[in-house]
Amino acid sequence: MSDDLSAAARAYSNIAFIKYWGNADDALRLPASGSLSMNLAGLHTTTVLRWSEDLIGDSLTINDQIAQPHALRRTSAHLDVMRERLGIRHRAEIRSSNNFPMGTGIASSASAFAALTLAATAALGVELSQRELSALARRGSGSAARSIPPGFVEWFTGASHDSSYAETIAGPDHWDLVDVVAVVSREHKRVDSTAGHATAASSVLQSARLQTVEDRLRMAKGAILRRNFEQLAAVVEEDSNLMHAIMMTSRPALFYWQPASLAIMQAVRRWRERDGLEVCYTLDAGPNVHCICASSDAQVVKSRLKAIDGVNDVLYSEAGPGAHLIADE
Amino acid sequence: MSDDLSAAARAYSNIAFIKYWGNADDALRLPASGSLSMNLAGLHTTTVLRWSEDLIGDSLTINDQIAQPHALRRTSAHLDVMRERLGIRHRAEIRSSNNFPMGTGIASSASAFAALTLAATAALGVELSQRELSALARRGSGSAARSIPPGFVEWFTGASHDSSYAETIAGPDHWDLVDVVAVVSREHKRVDSTAGHATAASSVLQSARLQTVEDRLRMAKGAILRRNFEQLAAVVEEDSNLMHAIMMTSRPALFYWQPASLAIMQAVRRWRERDGLEVCYTLDAGPNVHCICASSDAQVVKSRLKAIDGVNDVLYSEAGPGAHLIADE
Repeated sequence: MSDDLSAAARAYSNIAFIKYWGNADDALRLPASGSLSMNLAGLHTTTVLRWSEDLIGDSLTINDQIAQPHALRRTSAHLDVMRERLGIRHRAEIRSSNNFPMGTGIASSASAFAALTLAATAALGVELSQRELSALARRGSGSAARSIPPGFVEWFTGASHDSSYAETIAGPDHWDLVDVVAVVSREHKRVDSTAGHATAASSVLQSARLQTVEDRLRMAKGAILRRNFEQLAAVVEEDSNLMHAIMMTSRPALFYWQPASLAIMQAVRRWRERDGLEVCYTLDAGPNVHCICASSDAQVVKSRLKAIDGVNDVLYSEAGPGAHLIADE
Repeated sequence: MSDDLSAAARAYSNIAFIKYWGNADDALRLPASGSLSMNLAGLHTTTVLRWSEDLIGDSLTINDQIAQPHALRRTSAHLDVMRERLGIRHRAEIRSSNNFPMGTGIASSASAFAALTLAATAALGVELSQRELSALARRGSGSAARSIPPGFVEWFTGASHDSSYAETIAGPDHWDLVDVVAVVSREHKRVDSTAGHATAASSVLQSARLQTVEDRLRMAKGAILRRNFEQLAAVVEEDSNLMHAIMMTSRPALFYWQPASLAIMQAVRRWRERDGLEVCYTLDAGPNVHCICASSDAQVVKSRLKAIDGVNDVLYSEAGPGAHLIADE
C-alpha cells in the first residue's frame, strides 16, 4: 500500500424540482418516492480525505474549523459504510470546505457527502461506477445521491441499497437555467432534514402526495427535455407547495417558511404571471427561496429580489457538473 | 295580508375550528365534509327586511351604502330560494349593517345570510324550525348554516338539502373561549370563498383531508365538551393548516396567508409552547389570524398581537348566541 492514501474531490449542491421528503427505510435512506434536481455549479464542497492506519479516530474540519461533534458523528457513520464497502479499518482525516457562506441555510449535506464518498474511494485507488457512488453517497445524505451525476438528475426510489441511485437525464449544458437563491435567514434550521424526513409519514396528506409523485416526475422530466419553462414552473411550484403542505401538517407541524419566504413566493408568481418573466420558486427544508429562471431573466430577478424586505443575500448558480476529482491543493 | 311585512334579525359571525372547504354539490352548497365552529358574539350583522308586492326589484344597502351589483345578485339568488320556500313573489327591500369594520377581511357572508334568512321568514310571520332555518341559510353561504344555532355548532354534511344543517353541541356559556382576531389586511380577498370552494377538488391532497375529517371532528367535539384546551389547540391548528395546504396545492394555487399571517402563527405557537398561554391559531379564507384563547389569557394575547409588525387592528369576541329577531329600529 502506498503511504499516501489521499484524494481531493469536489461536488455540487443541487436544488430539487421534484422533492425528496420521507423515507421508505430511514436506516438505508431509501426514499418514499423518486425525485429530480439540478446540480448547482456555483455552490460546491471541496473535500480532501486521507486514510491512515495510524490515526486513532476520524477527524473533520469544515472551512478550517474543527467540526461540531454531531457533524463528526454523522461523517464517521458514513465512513463506516465506506470502510465496510472498501474492506478497510483505516481512520480518515478530512478537510472539507464550502465555497458558499456557511449558515445561509444552503444545505451542504448533499455536496458534502457526494464529495466525501468520491474522495474516500479515490484515496484508496478504487474506481466505482457512477451508479454505485451515487447509491453510497445516498447513505450519508439522501440528496447526495443526486450530486454524483452531472446536470439534471433523477433519483430512482429503488427497493434496495443497490437500486436506489441517481442518473443524469440531461447534461448541464442542455438548458441554461439559473438558480437565483434569495437568502432570507442565517439561522440554522431548527429541525434538520434527517429528523424532518422521519416526521413526513405523520401527515395525513403524505400518502396522497406520494401517490401522485410519478405524474409530477414525468411532467418535470418532459418539461426539462423539451425546455418548456411554463410547464416546468407549474410542476416545480406545485411540488414545492406539496412538500411544505406535508411539513406543516406533520405532527408536530414543521414550518420552514419565514414571512419573507412567503413574500418572495408571491412576488415570483406575480413576476411570472403579470410581467412575463421566466421564473418560478421552490423551497427545500429551509426558508431560502430558490428562484429558478431562464438565464436571460436572471439579472432582473436578482435585482428585484434584493429590493425585497428580508432578503439578506442573493446567490447565483448555473446548472452544474457531477462530482469529480481535483488536484490536491 | 298585513301592510307591513317586515322584520329585523341579527346573526353572528362564526369561526370554524374544523373547516368547511369544498362542496359535494356546489349548487346546493352541500359540503364535502362536516365542520364545527364557535359563534362570535362581538361580530354581528343586523338585517331589516321588508317584503312588498309593489317593489319592482330587490334592493340592498350594506351599512347604509347601496350594495355592489355582485352582492345584490347573490342576495337576490338567495331570496329566490326563500320565495320558493315561502310561496311568494314579493320583492324585498333589505337594509343590512355589520358592527365590525368593513374590509377587514372578516367574512360577513355567514352572519349576513343567517340574518337574512331569519328576517325573510319572520317578515311573513312564518316560524321555521332552527334546523330548517339552518339548511336554508346554507343555500346563501355554506357557513351561514352554522350562524343559526347558538354557541358551539356542528354542521352535518348531509346528503340532501334537508339533511345538511347545523346544530348546537354546547351553548355559548359552556366554555369561556375568546376569539382575538389579528387583522393584517384591509384588502378584499382576491378569490372569494365561493370560487375557492370550487377549486378544492383540484388539489391532489383534498381527498386525503376529507378521509380524515371525521377523526378531527370527533377530537374537536370531545375537546370542547371536556373543555380541554390543549387537545382543542392541536386539532384546530392542524385542521387550519390542512385547509391551507389544500388551498396552496390547488390549481391555481391559492395563498390566503400574508407574510404577517405566518409571523403571527409562529408567535402564537411559541406563546403556547414556550410561555404556557392557552392560545391557538386558525385562519379562514383570508389573511387574518383568529387567535382562540382562554378568556384569562385574552388581554395578554391582544397586547402581544398589537406589537407584531403588520397587525393593523385587533378584534375581540366571546362565544355568541344564535340568530334572533330584534325590535325593528
